[in-house]
Amino acid sequence: MSEKELNKDTLLRNFFEREDLRDLSLEECEGVLNLLVQGIHGLDEKAMEAVQARLDSLTKPQGSLGVLETIAKQIGGIQGNPWPEADKKAVLVMAGDHGVVAEGVSAYPQEVTAQMFYNFLGGGAGINVLSRHANAEVICTDVGIAVPLDPPELMRYRIMNGTRNMAKEPAMTRHEALLSLLTGAKIAQQAIDNGVKVLATGEVGIGNTTPSAAIISLFTGLSAKEVAGRGTGLNDAGLLNKQEVITRSIAVNQPDVNDGVDVLRKIGGLEIGALAGAILQAAYSRVPILLDGVISTAAALIAVQICPTARNFLIPSHSSVEIGHKAALKHLGLKPMMDLDFRLGEGTGAAIGFHLVEAAIRILKEMATFESAGVSGKK
Amino acid sequence: MSEKELNKDTLLRNFFEREDLRDLSLEECEGVLNLLVQGIHGLDEKAMEAVQARLDSLTKPQGSLGVLETIAKQIGGIQGNPWPEADKKAVLVMAGDHGVVAEGVSAYPQEVTAQMFYNFLGGGAGINVLSRHANAEVICTDVGIAVPLDPPELMRYRIMNGTRNMAKEPAMTRHEALLSLLTGAKIAQQAIDNGVKVLATGEVGIGNTTPSAAIISLFTGLSAKEVAGRGTGLNDAGLLNKQEVITRSIAVNQPDVNDGVDVLRKIGGLEIGALAGAILQAAYSRVPILLDGVISTAAALIAVQICPTARNFLIPSHSSVEIGHKAALKHLGLKPMMDLDFRLGEGTGAAIGFHLVEAAIRILKEMATFESAGVSGKK
Repeated sequence: MSEKELNKDTLLRNFFEREDLRDLSLEECEGVLNLLVQGIHGLDEKAMEAVQARLDSLTKPQGSLGVLETIAKQIGGIQGNPWPEADKKAVLVMAGDHGVVAEGVSAYPQEVTAQMFYNFLGGGAGINVLSRHANAEVICTDVGIAVPLDPPELMRYRIMNGTRNMAKEPAMTRHEALLSLLTGAKIAQQAIDNGVKVLATGEVGIGNTTPSAAIISLFTGLSAKEVAGRGTGLNDAGLLNKQEVITRSIAVNQPDVNDGVDVLRKIGGLEIGALAGAILQAAYSRVPILLDGVISTAAALIAVQICPTARNFLIPSHSSVEIGHKAALKHLGLKPMMDLDFRLGEGTGAAIGFHLVEAAIRILKEMATFESAGVSGKK
Repeated sequence: MSEKELNKDTLLRNFFEREDLRDLSLEECEGVLNLLVQGIHGLDEKAMEAVQARLDSLTKPQGSLGVLETIAKQIGGIQGNPWPEADKKAVLVMAGDHGVVAEGVSAYPQEVTAQMFYNFLGGGAGINVLSRHANAEVICTDVGIAVPLDPPELMRYRIMNGTRNMAKEPAMTRHEALLSLLTGAKIAQQAIDNGVKVLATGEVGIGNTTPSAAIISLFTGLSAKEVAGRGTGLNDAGLLNKQEVITRSIAVNQPDVNDGVDVLRKIGGLEIGALAGAILQAAYSRVPILLDGVISTAAALIAVQICPTARNFLIPSHSSVEIGHKAALKHLGLKPMMDLDFRLGEGTGAAIGFHLVEAAIRILKEMATFESAGVSGKK
């Protein structure tokens, strides 16, 4: 880092070390976000070349381990290290509620968001099991659940009690949306400060496939019908209603597709903002971040709109049952590694992706070379 | 098992306990294979129902963990146990050479088969790294490498020094093909006797995507052009030649598509036969077996032709770059879980699949229920 960049970094850290980001003014929030974005730089080409040279010396036809080779190279470029590390992992699970559930867009009652949040803390949810299996930590943050939690300490990062109904008005003010971004960035930075080398995105929020599909529709130009899925289990009538709510929300709010924060505030959600902020922070701190399903990927669309360079730090995991997910990944230029027919969210697909990221790095470091193993090359 | 089945099992074990299967006559080989096939039965419906009931009580929308739920149920049905186990794992890597390399179907020289076999034993190949990552054993068997190995003990299961050139004559006699099947079955049984609960298929054999594509072409009815890929790296002219060799091999040999052993002997390979035998033994011993790429899946087509019930014991892993692979999986009614752009073989995709199999079982056993976690159900 240059001296100027170090100063900016200190400034950013000072903001994040505040007990409570919520007393930052709108202008301060804009300023911090700008600092963050200005500190995001591209991949280290030199490290990537060194990784590629080593991959090509290993006992396999060049490129024959496909995606694992791509990931090894990407992480080399992210870490600026031809011998990269992926030992400590964490899933950032952001929780928020959605005013738009008043429109009947979910098969489950809103109280489930808080109930599942407690389930995460108790270690009994899908994301807990799959993270244990991946030897990854689960870091759960309430950024906007609608009901009180006990103990109140659980609500220390909560920005508001759920968003407003985006079918009638903007889901958030610009200030609230910025706070969700910065809170997500702060949570990600805490994990990175604790030594986490690979992050993953996760979430819970009853109704959150609706704002996610709206964001995907807006950025890809596809209709609500083409991007909205059944979420946790809508029937045909419910799906039609959801599509109509998405179309209406976009029409009512007229989000500016060239302003990621505007899109987030009008048709997004608090956990979506927090994930977008976590992605920006991961990019700033040069840590790869695995995307999960449709909500995580909508957050990535926001993050990449705010800072296109952040795209280089994303690793896709699976392609979910939600039809908008594939479209969103394609829009980001990402190809999913797995197709597991998941539609749970929480970060479950991303948690499985850790195994592939680690595999990529072990291939790079542990495979024998043609020379060391005495294997003949191509004719 | 009934008394009659126990007697048959003892008979089968007596055969497999022979030091050397190669002194079995053709008729004895046919008899042993029949015993094996007769002992393969379908999935345990009762165990599967119990698994399904538990899955539906867990804190997630029903079916939302897609493939993991399917696998948990399948393994419950295989093991006849609603609380199945997947703790000990092994990849069976079968090695064999192919007379058809005389037709110029591979980008690498034949000597690489033996060199890679030594690399496997030394722990430096892709399959070693990915198996270590999965905490799985690698069991390498030479069933038909063309050149001598040192020490000679490494050749104790070798049936012959590579197959004959299938573009001119049958690759094997029926006797040799049956020996490859039974040797594979014996290797699988040894692993299972050592406590292995989940198997995976792997292989090495320069030229072996050619017989595999021929087998896939024959069973699926697709042309050589539709199923042949570039293997380890053929150029355009090499690919055209390979397609022509496949078409010619089928025309010259006229394999009987209703007789899996006939297909194997005429256009197959020793490692393909050994993998088909391992699949049949896994089914007999009620152990799930993960498929890898195009060679493993060609072996599965042979195994399922010999015994259609064996299909229930297969778990697909990835979809490889080889174009015939997707067609073969589809023909088997299997959907790959991953798309990693792999084209290495060895069992590399299957080794990664272990993580998903274990994840499935952990989900079944470790997730909280709606009741235990106090989470509300669907509206």
